[in-house]
Amino acid sequence: MNFKFVLVPLIVIIAIACNPKKEQEERPLKKEIPVVPVGYNPEGKLKELGITLMKPSSPVANYVNAVRSGNLIYLSGKGPRQSNGENIIGKVGVDLTIKEGQEAARITGINQLSVLKSELGNLNKVVRVVKVLGMVNAAPEFTDHPKVINGYSDLMVAVFGDRGKHARAAVGMGSLPGNIAVEIEMIVEVLPD
Amino acid sequence: MNFKFVLVPLIVIIAIACNPKKEQEERPLKKEIPVVPVGYNPEGKLKELGITLMKPSSPVANYVNAVRSGNLIYLSGKGPRQSNGENIIGKVGVDLTIKEGQEAARITGINQLSVLKSELGNLNKVVRVVKVLGMVNAAPEFTDHPKVINGYSDLMVAVFGDRGKHARAAVGMGSLPGNIAVEIEMIVEVLPD
Amino acid sequence: MNFKFVLVPLIVIIAIACNPKKEQEERPLKKEIPVVPVGYNPEGKLKELGITLMKPSSPVANYVNAVRSGNLIYLSGKGPRQSNGENIIGKVGVDLTIKEGQEAARITGINQLSVLKSELGNLNKVVRVVKVLGMVNAAPEFTDHPKVINGYSDLMVAVFGDRGKHARAAVGMGSLPGNIAVEIEMIVEVLPD
Repeated sequence: MNFKFVLVPLIVIIAIACNPKKEQEERPLKKEIPVVPVGYNPEGKLKELGITLMKPSSPVANYVNAVRSGNLIYLSGKGPRQSNGENIIGKVGVDLTIKEGQEAARITGINQLSVLKSELGNLNKVVRVVKVLGMVNAAPEFTDHPKVINGYSDLMVAVFGDRGKHARAAVGMGSLPGNIAVEIEMIVEVLPD
Repeated sequence: MNFKFVLVPLIVIIAIACNPKKEQEERPLKKEIPVVPVGYNPEGKLKELGITLMKPSSPVANYVNAVRSGNLIYLSGKGPRQSNGENIIGKVGVDLTIKEGQEAARITGINQLSVLKSELGNLNKVVRVVKVLGMVNAAPEFTDHPKVINGYSDLMVAVFGDRGKHARAAVGMGSLPGNIAVEIEMIVEVLPD
Repeated sequence: MNFKFVLVPLIVIIAIACNPKKEQEERPLKKEIPVVPVGYNPEGKLKELGITLMKPSSPVANYVNAVRSGNLIYLSGKGPRQSNGENIIGKVGVDLTIKEGQEAARITGINQLSVLKSELGNLNKVVRVVKVLGMVNAAPEFTDHPKVINGYSDLMVAVFGDRGKHARAAVGMGSLPGNIAVEIEMIVEVLPD
């Protein structure tokens, strides 16, 4: 008898003590697992688009193609290196048309996806394209940088859907390495390990 | 009798098992809630300064004005679009004086605050302006980029106080979209949801 | 007798309830404490290299040298200010050779390490150099930006080893403040407080 009067309150106390804790724990855990929409399949999209990713080019100096910190991957600036190994070079608006600049930006996008794929193993782990800095090699009078960098942005949205929509700046550089037409860097959020 | 000898140690064991856990849990939770100083009221400051925020301009392509990842908001590069819809255009040091460039930077700041407001609902949720990249449309001989971008930085400090002080680079671009005088992008830390 | 039948299941229930929780808690905690390799000692490396860090220069306007958000430190753009207080100025490829540009980038690196040291107290708290944006003051025909910025990247790897390897963009600006030869900004991951 005596025994019941102690045991029952004890169980109640334990239950009360445990419940609020559970809620607290779940908060940070829920935050870490972003929900991916039904049918989200960037790898499948790439195949549909007929894009084949290659082994990414090696950095030309003492740096790396990508660094991960937390759930963000910072990608080094890449240029429009084609599958034959040649870069698209020249200043857009002088040596290249806007259309050619756009194609250079698209090829740069494929190169960045190749880096991402080699970092992640699977592009379906991409949660969101966060930020793109699109740098166009242009003459001082050039004004159509957004149209050029659209070649890159449109590819990201074609592959990742709404999750490919990013914050962006599209600007004109005085010069770029090896006179490449564009150089583009990107920050991508990925699934936690 | 026998009963007490089991129940009392049991309670002690439960108490010991629960205590260290509590400390561990509180650490990450405390970290997530940044403390805001007494009297911090950017929304009030805006009114004091007589600044009215408008609906931000829509991106001109396949990207968005802002992307949030964790507690950071990445803002797309914006330019000096005035309330009449016209941009301030021209190269600073050639077509525009430093003072006119400064005003262009300040207007760009108002445009970024409009984006932030439309993302957050309330600017009082801003924990810290983290990073600003101020890009000035300038001739190759121009050297006063910091003075130009001060138009932006001073506004952030006027609105957010010490929390508006940011890491910054102020540099000269070869060209900018539509020949706008400045383009500025920003990273802002905000309260957790 | 009755008593044992209640108490034993109770203990089992408590044990089951507590165990999975423990695993959940340890996940985020483990993530926050990055493992540093044996022998990692950037402070010692600096001494070996004969580099003395100075008090960093003050920002020339309403901004700060560095902002921390979470485990990342965002460093403002810095230039090649020498220990005598003079900047290395001029356009690389016109006024300065590639070698002189490289030395300007290396000195900029020392200046950024000075900022980091003054923020952290101890460079051994650096977990990883995440991202570098190397901006070269160059003529429109210049193409060797990577070689110039190597002066910076090589210093980071000399001091931090593999943890100094970063994502990078090396690009050409139309102009820079005070006509400095290079301006470089950086994001660094540091140990949690």
